[in-house]
Amino acid sequence: MITPNMNYANLKDSYLFYNISQKVKAYQQEHPDAHLYRMGIGDVSLPLCDAVIKALHEAVDDQADAVRFHGYMPECGAPVLRETIAAYYGSRGIALSPEDVFVSSGASDELGDILDLFDRGGSSLIIEPAYPAYVDANVIAGRKIIHLPSGRENGFLPEPGEDTVADLIYLCSPNNPTGAVFDREKLTKWVGFANAHESIILFDAAYEAFIDDPTLPRRIFEIPGAETCAIEICSLSKTAGFTGTRLGYTVIPKALKRNGMCLNDMWVRNRTTKTNGVSYIIQKGGAAVFTPEGQKQIHDNLRIYKNNAAVLMEALDRASVWYCGGKNSPYIWMRCPEGTDSWAFFDRLLNEIQVIGTPGAGFGACGEGYFRFSTFGNPEDTKEAARRLEALLK
Amino acid sequence: MITPNMNYANLKDSYLFYNISQKVKAYQQEHPDAHLYRMGIGDVSLPLCDAVIKALHEAVDDQADAVRFHGYMPECGAPVLRETIAAYYGSRGIALSPEDVFVSSGASDELGDILDLFDRGGSSLIIEPAYPAYVDANVIAGRKIIHLPSGRENGFLPEPGEDTVADLIYLCSPNNPTGAVFDREKLTKWVGFANAHESIILFDAAYEAFIDDPTLPRRIFEIPGAETCAIEICSLSKTAGFTGTRLGYTVIPKALKRNGMCLNDMWVRNRTTKTNGVSYIIQKGGAAVFTPEGQKQIHDNLRIYKNNAAVLMEALDRASVWYCGGKNSPYIWMRCPEGTDSWAFFDRLLNEIQVIGTPGAGFGACGEGYFRFSTFGNPEDTKEAARRLEALLK
Repeated sequence: MITPNMNYANLKDSYLFYNISQKVKAYQQEHPDAHLYRMGIGDVSLPLCDAVIKALHEAVDDQADAVRFHGYMPECGAPVLRETIAAYYGSRGIALSPEDVFVSSGASDELGDILDLFDRGGSSLIIEPAYPAYVDANVIAGRKIIHLPSGRENGFLPEPGEDTVADLIYLCSPNNPTGAVFDREKLTKWVGFANAHESIILFDAAYEAFIDDPTLPRRIFEIPGAETCAIEICSLSKTAGFTGTRLGYTVIPKALKRNGMCLNDMWVRNRTTKTNGVSYIIQKGGAAVFTPEGQKQIHDNLRIYKNNAAVLMEALDRASVWYCGGKNSPYIWMRCPEGTDSWAFFDRLLNEIQVIGTPGAGFGACGEGYFRFSTFGNPEDTKEAARRLEALLK
Repeated sequence: MITPNMNYANLKDSYLFYNISQKVKAYQQEHPDAHLYRMGIGDVSLPLCDAVIKALHEAVDDQADAVRFHGYMPECGAPVLRETIAAYYGSRGIALSPEDVFVSSGASDELGDILDLFDRGGSSLIIEPAYPAYVDANVIAGRKIIHLPSGRENGFLPEPGEDTVADLIYLCSPNNPTGAVFDREKLTKWVGFANAHESIILFDAAYEAFIDDPTLPRRIFEIPGAETCAIEICSLSKTAGFTGTRLGYTVIPKALKRNGMCLNDMWVRNRTTKTNGVSYIIQKGGAAVFTPEGQKQIHDNLRIYKNNAAVLMEALDRASVWYCGGKNSPYIWMRCPEGTDSWAFFDRLLNEIQVIGTPGAGFGACGEGYFRFSTFGNPEDTKEAARRLEALLK
């Protein structure tokens, strides 16, 4: 008799986005003509840039041609894309070999799969508020989860303490949901901790493209010593609008070893066993992101989202509301008005000004009393939402 | 201190395709002008059909348009594609709900990931000769592997015996590498066994499109009772030439329960945690396979491969060689000449007639003395290879 993985029974149901959608649906039924200002979900709204579209069409044409047709792709990524990404790191002063880079279907896929590399008896440290999938993937794997709450007192950017114990450490910077960004000093402390304790940092860099401040690290590998203690998981989802097109990449330096095992070699073996590579079409589209033309075009798009963030921040500043994020980040994490919990604030925004955001309590207990806005929406809607929000909060 | 997953240390290195490529390279260096007849690797050679290409181009255009743009896809698959695939099963007399169908990036990805559903203390029964990834995925997961050797005496299609013990049972039909196809009677025995012992069958149906004989089951769910004991993993790789384009699907009936847990619900939770869905572009291309136009076009392509198989079978028949597969299958599994092991036969074919196949010993010990031909190659090359093979074997 087979036994299912009973860890699934320990998963807590997440009603966050389900509850939001039910509340929005109910409001729309009562107010069928109302225009809603959607700043809740972290999905992009701008189409793919021209350079990517052109490359995707070319790739489709290749798949129609007997000579240019591509069958099975190399499991760890097309060599040309691995080289391109390594060179992109090189342009930021980080020396990588193409073999350190693995092409993936996206950061969320990789964040789940990567747990295959570790013994299931270990522990995972998750800073809260957190992206819910970090917790759920560890519950499914049966790993011990150590919750590290953060708050306004440390700008939602905690440091390792003397009593910190963790085998695997999740760091997401710029952070989802708080928008907070680790500076070099704090990241250096985490890298020092991981090397000293032979832990491994899983660095989720999905939002790195939103960092404009040149003093802030965009990559964990900008911190000396990270190559012996960190895996970086990145994606084109937010950088280039690939949320529905799917492409990401993971960096596992050859120097990362534990218990005599090279994690890079292990991941090669994992990918060659458990995948047949990422679609040729999508990889060719993704490679276009790294061309000079692609870089210019994605930055034109990113500027629109960054401007949305600026518009919202100005409104919150004028209303004297505490928040973090928005700068160097696509998320704004604001304190709800005194005495209002995050779901009550959600209801108030929906009913009074038709603005939809995400209640902070949905990202962990220490998110209660906070509220997340995403800045991936339409600029006109964002402007009007900011105006309404300012009037309500003043 | 983190401990890596030490199961990786138990993986055996597979030199099968590496050794083949080294031998071929050496031969080419000595004979730079020789034309080689490649019938080794199971990759397709024909480009995608017109209906799929058209749909892919349309999907790329959608991603360039602000209104038609698709962000995050539903994690378990686009509803329209899940409905289409359920209807396709319906047309073959199998009643499925769209919720029973999960869209995947391909069968190999899914065959690895699906082990997440099961307790790691369990056992996996693998019929040998076998696709090497079955074994490796179970080694990585730390599961006990039960090898069930097959041979000419049972047509490489073993049945469960009185002493058979297994939690998870891998069945691949039409089989890779042997090309053997289970009939209804044998599959019914396996389904009966799995239901009686509360085991689960993982049915790899990647080659189902090659079955022409209407009396042979193409799907495990054609067997009564399978809905309470089987998961079917399928792919468009061989059906529609998607090896490098990547799309597959998995069927987990709602009725499949073990230990009070519904495996379908568990997989929904797994996918929503560990993926963000499959690329919109690829799903739209995949949906075109199931249109009347797409079906006609993929069958035109399949006919070319099936004709390659017929050409090779005729040559082997004339040379009075024992083989299985070829009928209802893209693989032909032949007995090497008396006294020749499978690597010696490989060398002989390469050196004497410039034909490349795959030594059976690479698929497990009981594959020794056998040799695999794939029929996905160029028809002209296949004809000449068959002529040379017949002359050599006669």
